[in-house]
Amino acid sequence: MAGSKYAYVRNFELPDPLLPRTFMVLRLDGHSFHRFSDEHDFTKPNDIRALKLMDHAAKDLMEQYPDVVLAFGESDEFSFLIRKSASLYNRRQSKIVSTLTSLFTSSYVFRWATYFPDRPLKYPPSFDGRLVLYPGAQEIRDYFSWRQTDTHINNLYNTTFWALVQQGGETTTQAHTTLKGTVSKEKNEILFSRFHINYNTLDAQFRKGSILVREEISEEPVPDTSTTADTSTENDTTTSPASSLPKMRGRTKPRTKVVVLHCDIIKDKFWDARPEILSS
Amino acid sequence: MAGSKYAYVRNFELPDPLLPRTFMVLRLDGHSFHRFSDEHDFTKPNDIRALKLMDHAAKDLMEQYPDVVLAFGESDEFSFLIRKSASLYNRRQSKIVSTLTSLFTSSYVFRWATYFPDRPLKYPPSFDGRLVLYPGAQEIRDYFSWRQTDTHINNLYNTTFWALVQQGGETTTQAHTTLKGTVSKEKNEILFSRFHINYNTLDAQFRKGSILVREEISEEPVPDTSTTADTSTENDTTTSPASSLPKMRGRTKPRTKVVVLHCDIIKDKFWDARPEILSS
Amino acid sequence: MAGSKYAYVRNFELPDPLLPRTFMVLRLDGHSFHRFSDEHDFTKPNDIRALKLMDHAAKDLMEQYPDVVLAFGESDEFSFLIRKSASLYNRRQSKIVSTLTSLFTSSYVFRWATYFPDRPLKYPPSFDGRLVLYPGAQEIRDYFSWRQTDTHINNLYNTTFWALVQQGGETTTQAHTTLKGTVSKEKNEILFSRFHINYNTLDAQFRKGSILVREEISEEPVPDTSTTADTSTENDTTTSPASSLPKMRGRTKPRTKVVVLHCDIIKDKFWDARPEILSS
Amino acid sequence: MAGSKYAYVRNFELPDPLLPRTFMVLRLDGHSFHRFSDEHDFTKPNDIRALKLMDHAAKDLMEQYPDVVLAFGESDEFSFLIRKSASLYNRRQSKIVSTLTSLFTSSYVFRWATYFPDRPLKYPPSFDGRLVLYPGAQEIRDYFSWRQTDTHINNLYNTTFWALVQQGGETTTQAHTTLKGTVSKEKNEILFSRFHINYNTLDAQFRKGSILVREEISEEPVPDTSTTADTSTENDTTTSPASSLPKMRGRTKPRTKVVVLHCDIIKDKFWDARPEILSS
Repeated sequence: MAGSKYAYVRNFELPDPLLPRTFMVLRLDGHSFHRFSDEHDFTKPNDIRALKLMDHAAKDLMEQYPDVVLAFGESDEFSFLIRKSASLYNRRQSKIVSTLTSLFTSSYVFRWATYFPDRPLKYPPSFDGRLVLYPGAQEIRDYFSWRQTDTHINNLYNTTFWALVQQGGETTTQAHTTLKGTVSKEKNEILFSRFHINYNTLDAQFRKGSILVREEISEEPVPDTSTTADTSTENDTTTSPASSLPKMRGRTKPRTKVVVLHCDIIKDKFWDARPEILSS
Repeated sequence: MAGSKYAYVRNFELPDPLLPRTFMVLRLDGHSFHRFSDEHDFTKPNDIRALKLMDHAAKDLMEQYPDVVLAFGESDEFSFLIRKSASLYNRRQSKIVSTLTSLFTSSYVFRWATYFPDRPLKYPPSFDGRLVLYPGAQEIRDYFSWRQTDTHINNLYNTTFWALVQQGGETTTQAHTTLKGTVSKEKNEILFSRFHINYNTLDAQFRKGSILVREEISEEPVPDTSTTADTSTENDTTTSPASSLPKMRGRTKPRTKVVVLHCDIIKDKFWDARPEILSS
Repeated sequence: MAGSKYAYVRNFELPDPLLPRTFMVLRLDGHSFHRFSDEHDFTKPNDIRALKLMDHAAKDLMEQYPDVVLAFGESDEFSFLIRKSASLYNRRQSKIVSTLTSLFTSSYVFRWATYFPDRPLKYPPSFDGRLVLYPGAQEIRDYFSWRQTDTHINNLYNTTFWALVQQGGETTTQAHTTLKGTVSKEKNEILFSRFHINYNTLDAQFRKGSILVREEISEEPVPDTSTTADTSTENDTTTSPASSLPKMRGRTKPRTKVVVLHCDIIKDKFWDARPEILSS
Repeated sequence: MAGSKYAYVRNFELPDPLLPRTFMVLRLDGHSFHRFSDEHDFTKPNDIRALKLMDHAAKDLMEQYPDVVLAFGESDEFSFLIRKSASLYNRRQSKIVSTLTSLFTSSYVFRWATYFPDRPLKYPPSFDGRLVLYPGAQEIRDYFSWRQTDTHINNLYNTTFWALVQQGGETTTQAHTTLKGTVSKEKNEILFSRFHINYNTLDAQFRKGSILVREEISEEPVPDTSTTADTSTENDTTTSPASSLPKMRGRTKPRTKVVVLHCDIIKDKFWDARPEILSS
């Protein structure tokens, strides 16, 4: 064949299989999103439209990849848990990282106008992805606890910081100085005493981040009002049917759907109610 | 700190640096693009709008990443050459693969409406990316020869196949049978004798693919009519100023721009004229 | 400094850390040992001196590396289990594989004359080593079951094969033909009816391989007669004090010693009695 | 088959092929050789028997592995260059590192008594091995320049240090203090003025290390007196026929032999005379 004398170059492509029977966590982070959020006038400290857009992109990803059994998002990052037994793309690292990062990015741009109808995208945003293996269930619990703790710490800081600036009239430099060295209790106190803000009543999405899991759908085609006791006030009921996505081989079975929660994932309750997430 | 007892999970993220002083080639491929092109009614055998969209996404990528010194595209794939001496993201494999794949995808979706103004995107497309290292210049020459040879082989087959179907009235099954075992000369003969098509006069983009390189811009702000002798009939003059992209640190110097060519890259001429591509 | 302009070459040495909190199994295999055993007239089907020499080299290794909590040997191969929590050499793969393979080899040559006093080593033998990670305890159980099953299958075949040759007067070709397609029961039958050999009464070392574990030493300096109920007839009491090895930092605590057993490790009994092997 | 239900554990063994067409350098280092040399009373600053033993082990390795085209040794370390085009063990990293490290170690122990006839080995020594890839010839030149420069620096320091201690009556602490901050010229001056030692007339092996290369053997079975002009006074003529090693497939062709030199490898002369080392 004409090209055969060059085909040897394929031999330089080396295999990159991931260790079998280990959990995979793929974490995506917005690339230069400080600038991106400025250019697109995101609301401070949290832009609910931007967060819902992230959630939607994550949901699209979970609907195409049934091996993804849990996702957690905050700010411009999202973590996806791929189950231990997954044989997705024969567990090839580059294939998994690149394809899932690509799909998330694509969905983010595709759905931008739905969440920002009056603010056109100025330029194409990008995300980086990294995949980390964890051998055991405890490490997965700790990974997600780490991310949700981070959400809390960042959100408390940012909420107080922007209250000082937006309502307190401080410059950003002054606000940083005011907060330097303060512990959580002191930030809560500043919020409450100076701005009459009770942190614990803020939108759960800001305090807890977004948790995406699959839930079974009851057979009767009733309106979607599924809520679970522990998350009743924190459910996001905009469960997209994702009807715009192509049907794919191996896609999630029709009797489950992806739901967005904003509940605690550090304590046992969340995990005890969903033993399938960590089972093999 | 509140999250510190969980922070050990970061230790599972392992380093993945690439060997220094080797060329990197990143190849992107459309994921399930057979279906995607059907769903979006791409013209057979080549859809010029889809190809120009790919070129534009590749150009956006090169403009953000000056370490990318050459790109080659055909159909739903694109290869990017990153120079040997690049220290991009400290040569971390996942970071490079995921970020560049993400940006390409993002640009593809972002610019879709420009190339398909009357055909809305039905769902978010995705690409996979893989990165291959090559120690020497000869292997890089051979890699791009391999891809361009592939372009020629595929295009000659597809052109003949669709001529048989669209103009010859054959079914796709019949057309496959007609072409089975034929060599290039026979396909050329079918095209010419039955359909009066001289293969060599077809659009160079279809026959040669797209080659993206940087060229120096003359200082005077004259209209862009730069052509080089060897590619005069095959240049794409739609050199985008990419003004919509944010200015980035490390971006290409203002005196060069990315141009799209459709010339031969197997023979020496292309490379002899651009020694900087393979130099370190 | 004089050498500083060349020191950049160190940057090509890439990190190779192994995933934390996973079990490591290092398996060593004799390199070209078919020839080696011929050249040194090893007894067929099993040479007890050669097996004891392998055991001794494995014991030396375990005494220098307290992170190795279990070893299993048969023929010219040995597998070593390194506990999950080990931080040996910062879990650098090449360092662990090369150093442990080197020590085993060194001990094998160093102790050769002890086991083969009248047969000088003709040339230096070598071993290859490979390291495999396992995320869970069940996989470790299955790994060692796999090796001990292999020991049984090989030994039954070889015992019958050499009985046919040495006692039955068959050529090696005839013996292969006789055994072709036979199952275990038929091989046992051949051994018993033709050669009056009851396979189950053969030396346990041949049937079960060698298992090396650490056992606590009672405080009183009594002679070493430690045996456990389940392995009473299968213990190797030649527990070497390894006094010839240098005292090393991190070496096994004085109250344990490495013992060689030839017992079943497929059923639960072995593991239930030694929960520390699989615990983290 | 009896063992088939456990055989899945083989799937955890992941491929580790090295990039094709790159030079490989394997460097071995003695493990805890400071103690080992003390325990075996090595002469300070250089023990010629220990160095010759290292050379012999390296020669054994080169004679079994024709892909190794150059070796350089000093003190308790040795570096081996494997040619770019080698397909040794399908370029599997662990296999190459472990097997070659094992053979070197084995030979070291096997030949100990030849070089230390009156000093029995007290315990088995070990070596660690690491493999580094280099894409180009210049990096290989620089790698070996780096090692030979290191040899010079260390040897000049150690020679002066031990002269101060052994002949000058200083304690080791005093000697360190005397040498602190001195440059090469000053150390040479100390050696010459206080001990009448002209550094440049010391044994070339101490100053230059050992270089092992293959040389063609003339057809006539004459005594081995081959020397090359530039290394005439520095050749080691104890070229072992290695007759004790088994004949192996792929072994070096009969018309070459491995010779030990102690010449400069930083300047061009050595490399110009042996273009085959860096050619593919």
